[in-house]
Amino acid sequence: MKQVIAVRTDLKIGKGKIAAQVAHASLAAAEEAMRSKPGWFESWKDGGQAKIVVKASDEGQLRDLFKKARSAHLPCAIIEDAGLTQLEPGTPTCVGIGPASDDSIDKITGNLKLL
Amino acid sequence: MKQVIAVRTDLKIGKGKIAAQVAHASLAAAEEAMRSKPGWFESWKDGGQAKIVVKASDEGQLRDLFKKARSAHLPCAIIEDAGLTQLEPGTPTCVGIGPASDDSIDKITGNLKLL
Repeated sequence: MKQVIAVRTDLKIGKGKIAAQVAHASLAAAEEAMRSKPGWFESWKDGGQAKIVVKASDEGQLRDLFKKARSAHLPCAIIEDAGLTQLEPGTPTCVGIGPASDDSIDKITGNLKLL
Repeated sequence: MKQVIAVRTDLKIGKGKIAAQVAHASLAAAEEAMRSKPGWFESWKDGGQAKIVVKASDEGQLRDLFKKARSAHLPCAIIEDAGLTQLEPGTPTCVGIGPASDDSIDKITGNLKLL
């Protein structure tokens, strides 16, 4: 079991902000799993809650990943920035997918490079 | 209400790994809040779940922050890396504090710079 978070690399944001956005995505997708797939969530948590952060090229790819995860019925969340500091309000920054089985997530994000 | 995650800047780890470690800390501290301070958790969540990522200089400062947060009875979690990739097993990488009131967290992390 793992969780993958894809982050846009075409936005000019610092590593602290990237980390905060990734944490938003991780928590939001994990919360969805707690509700909709409690067994997956517990199994992931007990197994060390692996989190992998990968690169998405732009907004289009981010939305595409989110759609594919939804279609596959995986827990997922897309994060839009509140826009208070470095970005325009509503800018999507990252997508969290899982926790779910490695195989089911790899079908969606397996070709993306590590951030 | 906010959550602050302090990350060591003396470790040689990439931004993807930093983001994953910050997400671990955020989720672990949020889970503790869910159990011990559900009102704080809900209030933070409904208010946009602010997350601020700041710098800690080294392991000593990280452990000091954790002790202060524990003493102040704030939800908190210290994250040690499993050591599978870039670090020695058990290396503490970051600390998550809160969600809690801005004032109570600022007493502990108010002097730290944004990552």
